[in-house]
Amino acid sequence: MSLSPYQHLEKRFKRVQVLRSITHLLRWDSEVLMPLGSSRIRSEQLALLDTECSAILLSKKTAVLLDRVESSSYSLDEWEEANVREMRRHWLYAKAIPKYLMNSLHRATTKAEVVWRRACEENNFKILSPHLEKVVDVVRDKAQFLGNAFGCSSYDALLDEHDPGRKSAEIDPIFQKLDLHLPPLIEKIIDKQSANLPVKISEKIPKSKQKDLGRFIMKKIGFPFNKGRLDESLHPFTEGTSEDLRITSLFAESDFLSGLMGILHETGHAMYDFGLPPDRFFQPVGRDRGMTVHESQALFLEMMIGRTPEFMNFAGPIVSRIFGVSGPAWQPENLYRMATQVRKSFNRMNADEVTYPMHILVRYELEKDIFSGSLRVKDLPDAWNEKFHKRMGIFPENVNQGCLQDSHWPQGYFGYFSTYALGAIMAAQLHRALKVEIPGFMQEIQQGDFSNLFDWLGKKIFQHGAKLSSQELLRQATGDSLNSDFYLDYLKEKYFVDTDIHS
Amino acid sequence: MSLSPYQHLEKRFKRVQVLRSITHLLRWDSEVLMPLGSSRIRSEQLALLDTECSAILLSKKTAVLLDRVESSSYSLDEWEEANVREMRRHWLYAKAIPKYLMNSLHRATTKAEVVWRRACEENNFKILSPHLEKVVDVVRDKAQFLGNAFGCSSYDALLDEHDPGRKSAEIDPIFQKLDLHLPPLIEKIIDKQSANLPVKISEKIPKSKQKDLGRFIMKKIGFPFNKGRLDESLHPFTEGTSEDLRITSLFAESDFLSGLMGILHETGHAMYDFGLPPDRFFQPVGRDRGMTVHESQALFLEMMIGRTPEFMNFAGPIVSRIFGVSGPAWQPENLYRMATQVRKSFNRMNADEVTYPMHILVRYELEKDIFSGSLRVKDLPDAWNEKFHKRMGIFPENVNQGCLQDSHWPQGYFGYFSTYALGAIMAAQLHRALKVEIPGFMQEIQQGDFSNLFDWLGKKIFQHGAKLSSQELLRQATGDSLNSDFYLDYLKEKYFVDTDIHS
Repeated sequence: MSLSPYQHLEKRFKRVQVLRSITHLLRWDSEVLMPLGSSRIRSEQLALLDTECSAILLSKKTAVLLDRVESSSYSLDEWEEANVREMRRHWLYAKAIPKYLMNSLHRATTKAEVVWRRACEENNFKILSPHLEKVVDVVRDKAQFLGNAFGCSSYDALLDEHDPGRKSAEIDPIFQKLDLHLPPLIEKIIDKQSANLPVKISEKIPKSKQKDLGRFIMKKIGFPFNKGRLDESLHPFTEGTSEDLRITSLFAESDFLSGLMGILHETGHAMYDFGLPPDRFFQPVGRDRGMTVHESQALFLEMMIGRTPEFMNFAGPIVSRIFGVSGPAWQPENLYRMATQVRKSFNRMNADEVTYPMHILVRYELEKDIFSGSLRVKDLPDAWNEKFHKRMGIFPENVNQGCLQDSHWPQGYFGYFSTYALGAIMAAQLHRALKVEIPGFMQEIQQGDFSNLFDWLGKKIFQHGAKLSSQELLRQATGDSLNSDFYLDYLKEKYFVDTDIHS
Repeated sequence: MSLSPYQHLEKRFKRVQVLRSITHLLRWDSEVLMPLGSSRIRSEQLALLDTECSAILLSKKTAVLLDRVESSSYSLDEWEEANVREMRRHWLYAKAIPKYLMNSLHRATTKAEVVWRRACEENNFKILSPHLEKVVDVVRDKAQFLGNAFGCSSYDALLDEHDPGRKSAEIDPIFQKLDLHLPPLIEKIIDKQSANLPVKISEKIPKSKQKDLGRFIMKKIGFPFNKGRLDESLHPFTEGTSEDLRITSLFAESDFLSGLMGILHETGHAMYDFGLPPDRFFQPVGRDRGMTVHESQALFLEMMIGRTPEFMNFAGPIVSRIFGVSGPAWQPENLYRMATQVRKSFNRMNADEVTYPMHILVRYELEKDIFSGSLRVKDLPDAWNEKFHKRMGIFPENVNQGCLQDSHWPQGYFGYFSTYALGAIMAAQLHRALKVEIPGFMQEIQQGDFSNLFDWLGKKIFQHGAKLSSQELLRQATGDSLNSDFYLDYLKEKYFVDTDIHS
């Protein structure tokens, strides 16, 4: 039986997806298990898999098949049409960037990341600066090639890489509103919380017990351990495919709550991947719809579900039982206050949900300035500090508190940070829609029942894969387009109303 | 700068080797970590890597390059010449077997392995029989194709797959001698040992402590943990390359010695791989010289080094310290007696070094009968029992004690078992040569100093990779060809002389 051109394309993209699933596993292994001295062969392995993927995408036959399918009258259903659109998108990405530039990018980021680690140790931006400049130069070239291919500005091309179809023209007004309304809100919340600070936990909790707790909660949430794992790594992350998905968290003996919240966050990522349409598993249209949607799922579970009185009422007794602890610090109400304490800090990664967007706004503005040419890399530290101080009223004392704290830029990731804040906004919108459609869902969480929650997310988000645009996905799920008002409303209600009820 | 045809070949075979190194890691992960429900995507991954390897080997360009390099007067050094010979060998293997047959083999063995597990649970050979017959049929076809390509008999082609260049005409007289002299030796040793049985260990040792012990001993031996790991799995194995090599053992709380001996065995495998010539890492000539040599290294470390009074004098105090144990059972001399106790048992995997070859001879004869056509698969259980009884004087009561105990045949591995016994013989010959060249080396082992031992093995075996034939390698190292007299002498001396000295 001969295959149609569309089926031939599916076969080719299946091979790409299988190769990528191997890449995921190797990356996970590199972070979790790989002996330190094995990085040379690991680089060779990852590079070869990448070369093989590109070879399939860029082979003449793929181009010919794509042209034929797009220009012909083959009857495709809506999933297949969306799949062809996504295939073309992947093809354009592979085609747009010359190989020499990918090699330059690889060399520049490999070097910059190594120097970045040293720069952090020495609290010294100057040694990183020339290497980061090199990375920016290469990324700028890459962005120009992508912009030409997609017919958009360079910076929009970088945004598109992580969040397909998102443009700065959509983001700017959303972030401006946050910039206007969040700083006074932060002041008010900190002031209010100062009257009722949480009791501190004094017990140290062994890592093995923290993992037991994590696995217990994950099972309750519905994480399918027959197709996934929980392990430890230096930073929490999720890697893999819905056929083999592995999450990690970091377990500090004196701070179990961060580890648990990390698990919720990564479980949110994982549940999205597990819920993607299984019959499209090997196809581009069966993948997730970019990092804003992905982050929305992680933040939804961590912030809107996990950092709530109802979740703590559910989890508190489990925590006490598994850890063998009791006392005022371990009461659900105190755990809730710990999990929602707002602080002005220099550090993005441990920031609470109220101050978090401020960290993102600083980075988003700096990126735009760098790629518009108005900011030079060597001037980053001062520009960072100024923008940070303007929003948070505190001034970083050194570069480790400032522009050295993230690995994204040395690794060549520009246009990525915005998805964290946009994901939070999207999560708040989903939260609002869910409250309307299933008014009692937080009572179910309190009972440890997550089934309706994930049924709803499955229908609204997971099962659509990459069929719709991110914007259309949100509109169909909530009736609204992305709008930071919903996030501000969510914060106001949670931090001024809910706490009054429960404390 | 343009590459020579030879350099082009090296590039292509490097890609094959990198792809294979990924296969190794995926296999390790499947056995040690993979969630059970992820086997479907894992099969897809392994199959695709295999397809990619074949595509490189079988591309027209590879054939053209091989022809050019072989027929031309390019000046190659001896390593390069040996490399071309190995490349041609790999090419012939890939070329000889039609793709449809590889697919049939994959299907037949996948099915047979699943049924084999059930057959073991039900202690029932009949349900496996038709599936094993199918495997044998496909392997027979494969062996014919290989035999034609290599100009040898079908069974010799199967031997060659695992132990390049080894023929049954070489093996037969070696095994006949064992068959003649081992049975009376076994009787005598068991009789002698019955007068002085070891004291039994009553303590249960937690797995974590057994791993601590294993890692400590491995470090002493010289296992480079910056490029390797120790983990647990259902059966001990070694997987990976010298850039990332992972061994496993099985840790039973009531039998630490099996776990430790498993670690020594796998460390022996690993040290060989670590010692392969690093500048040939990506080339066929830089790989190991087949399974007899590999097994010789594992058995050398486990049997000739590990199961000795000197090793136990070294390891005993470490065992006591790490486990926190003491008493008569934990004395080095008792541990030695435990590690060298000879028993007639039905089980190959846990067999001692004296009875072990008998288990192999049974399998070797049965394989030859199957491939000569004189034995049908359905008649295997009776034939097994008869051959086993003839040698060991005991009769398996059921198929789990007999022909169901190994997974090799359902997995399609025929011609493999012989390498276990040949490896033991080769190890004994190396042991004898080492005793002549470094007479005091066992005193060094007693001091925990393994450096001269591995320097010697490195020079004699490791550093030659696949440059020499297995026969030539042994001849250069010891002056002799493979000969079971050395093994019989080794056993006589160890079991009649050494124990008298030390007990």
